[in-house]
Amino acid sequence: MNSDTIEIKFTDGRTSRIRIANGLLAAAAEPSAELSGRFPPDSPLPRKCLLVCDQHTEVYAARLGRRLIASGCEIQQTRLPAGETTKSAEWLNRLWDLLAEHGFDRTGGVIAVGGGVIGDLAGFAAATFMRGISWFVVPTTLVAQVDSAIGGKVGINLDSGKNLAGVFWQPAEVWVDPQLLGTLPEREYLSGLAEVVKYGVIADAALFELLESKTAAIRTRDPEVLRTVIWRCCQIKAEVVGGDERETSGLRAKLNYGHTFGHAIEKVAGYGEFLHGEAVAIGMVWAAQTAQRLGVVPAAFVSRQTHLLREFGLPTTWPAAPSGLILEAMKLDKKRHGGLPRLILPRQIGLVESLNWPGDNLVLSAIEAPP
Amino acid sequence: MNSDTIEIKFTDGRTSRIRIANGLLAAAAEPSAELSGRFPPDSPLPRKCLLVCDQHTEVYAARLGRRLIASGCEIQQTRLPAGETTKSAEWLNRLWDLLAEHGFDRTGGVIAVGGGVIGDLAGFAAATFMRGISWFVVPTTLVAQVDSAIGGKVGINLDSGKNLAGVFWQPAEVWVDPQLLGTLPEREYLSGLAEVVKYGVIADAALFELLESKTAAIRTRDPEVLRTVIWRCCQIKAEVVGGDERETSGLRAKLNYGHTFGHAIEKVAGYGEFLHGEAVAIGMVWAAQTAQRLGVVPAAFVSRQTHLLREFGLPTTWPAAPSGLILEAMKLDKKRHGGLPRLILPRQIGLVESLNWPGDNLVLSAIEAPP
Repeated sequence: MNSDTIEIKFTDGRTSRIRIANGLLAAAAEPSAELSGRFPPDSPLPRKCLLVCDQHTEVYAARLGRRLIASGCEIQQTRLPAGETTKSAEWLNRLWDLLAEHGFDRTGGVIAVGGGVIGDLAGFAAATFMRGISWFVVPTTLVAQVDSAIGGKVGINLDSGKNLAGVFWQPAEVWVDPQLLGTLPEREYLSGLAEVVKYGVIADAALFELLESKTAAIRTRDPEVLRTVIWRCCQIKAEVVGGDERETSGLRAKLNYGHTFGHAIEKVAGYGEFLHGEAVAIGMVWAAQTAQRLGVVPAAFVSRQTHLLREFGLPTTWPAAPSGLILEAMKLDKKRHGGLPRLILPRQIGLVESLNWPGDNLVLSAIEAPP
Repeated sequence: MNSDTIEIKFTDGRTSRIRIANGLLAAAAEPSAELSGRFPPDSPLPRKCLLVCDQHTEVYAARLGRRLIASGCEIQQTRLPAGETTKSAEWLNRLWDLLAEHGFDRTGGVIAVGGGVIGDLAGFAAATFMRGISWFVVPTTLVAQVDSAIGGKVGINLDSGKNLAGVFWQPAEVWVDPQLLGTLPEREYLSGLAEVVKYGVIADAALFELLESKTAAIRTRDPEVLRTVIWRCCQIKAEVVGGDERETSGLRAKLNYGHTFGHAIEKVAGYGEFLHGEAVAIGMVWAAQTAQRLGVVPAAFVSRQTHLLREFGLPTTWPAAPSGLILEAMKLDKKRHGGLPRLILPRQIGLVESLNWPGDNLVLSAIEAPP
């Protein structure tokens, strides 16, 4: 088992750990002599844990559960319906009740096995049960492995908006097994690659080049290449959130490259029309086109980024895009702060910057430009 | 306006402020030239706040609201039903929705005007809306002024138990106006005095002596004497929670003097039968009797404490107490931690210590002793 560990150090001394290894979950099932030892060996695992999964991740959760039981853990497992509607106050309540009914106390823990929905919901339950118990997350989608499982953003959706209720509550550990991505539906997997490309653009030219040179291996989900790629993405995210845990210094804002456009696309198209990563892919193209119009990057930057996104089967344009509505949605999103949105725009591959709103006309022309 | 400020300093550098002044809320209503200035003058008040109250505190909240509007704040006010059942997931949801519907964002704030129920619920809503917005609390009961409004414990009850869902989220400021206690129902006011006596016993012999010498003034709710007493209680609580915010070092445990007995009394008698402070008063007597049986304090200690509690109109015995059930409830409460409960027991007026469970028979005989 090839393992890598990344430690996130927060400014007040707390730490959180990301373990990345192919076969981490498969190893959990091995009926070897190892079974009598703790799993993972040096994990600060509570004696009693609630495993939370959905129907897609139930098998992994059960496998992990058996291994943890063999490690001396008391395990309760619960399966929730897959899908965004589960990230609700109603399911949060059910998890609270479940923890209480099973006699959990402050020494207990929660283990989330799933994508962003399961992670955000189960993490929020852990954060708020008895004023916060420890939690662990096994992200099973690419987006979760490189993004949503890292950084402690947990919460639920309200009727009036996404992620409106939530807190920051860091998982003790994130267990990333790239092999789990082998069975992910193609469209969902590709959507995750948009966030991977984003890390290259915002912080790491070498990663971007690696993605360009290993496109085929990444498309066929080669676990070893994926491990390297995911490790680098996690390292970037760990650095950013370690320095700006609560999104107060502005450092964390650069993770939003492509997202101000992307959120507006998701909203205007109607949630579910584009996957999040697909909207972000188009958003990154529009952000690059905005930067080009400002004279910050050359046309070659735009086409290089667009080319890579296309190689990954991602959309890079929305032909019938209602540009006026998108502009409006972008501006409404930030209106509450009493100003115009700032945009994270590329300077070169591996470097972005936060710029003032460049004017409606310039942004409109970027949205309407041919890809 | 005679004002005192206590600053709570947490170990990571955060601070929280307690302002204590007679007429703090009355001053808010004064139609003076002052009105054009900020209120309170140097408060870090958000531009937009949700005022949360119940039918008993609506008048104070409205008064404060008018003053804050005159200070340039945008104010929304909502009235919830008074009573413990409001501290629920259902009302938490309504507050979340209300904040979202009124367009609150991360720069907004919540102001709770009320007792423990309103404070705990509104504080929890603030802690979890958009991953935490700032909040202020105007405690309107004695228990809230000296205890529940200070220390950042916020949360709700679940069907399976009290305060099971919640987090630690410090109010930016606590505004304490002892004059507000003038209209409190007698039994509720006296119940709060149990917590006041507790502070004397656990940390401050001079406070205990002041309570003994000013019994009459305290019973008639003399605002100046109350201000001195409340100020000292807040100072003790501030010191304890500043050093042990998340209840991890054991320091905060001493605030539980009388409470392990008290919680068991409330539970066995049925919630609502005794007010919290009444159960704590009896609990302190039983704790003292336990300490006496252990030879830690003399009989004179027990009778001195009992005398003061009686002077404050508090119960000091439960004649028909089902001692076996109480013992069971005490032990069940801690059973989850896989051990016997520890007890906070007095050593002398102004000093308590945490001791191992002294054995069922000794505790039973303390419960069954004549007061």
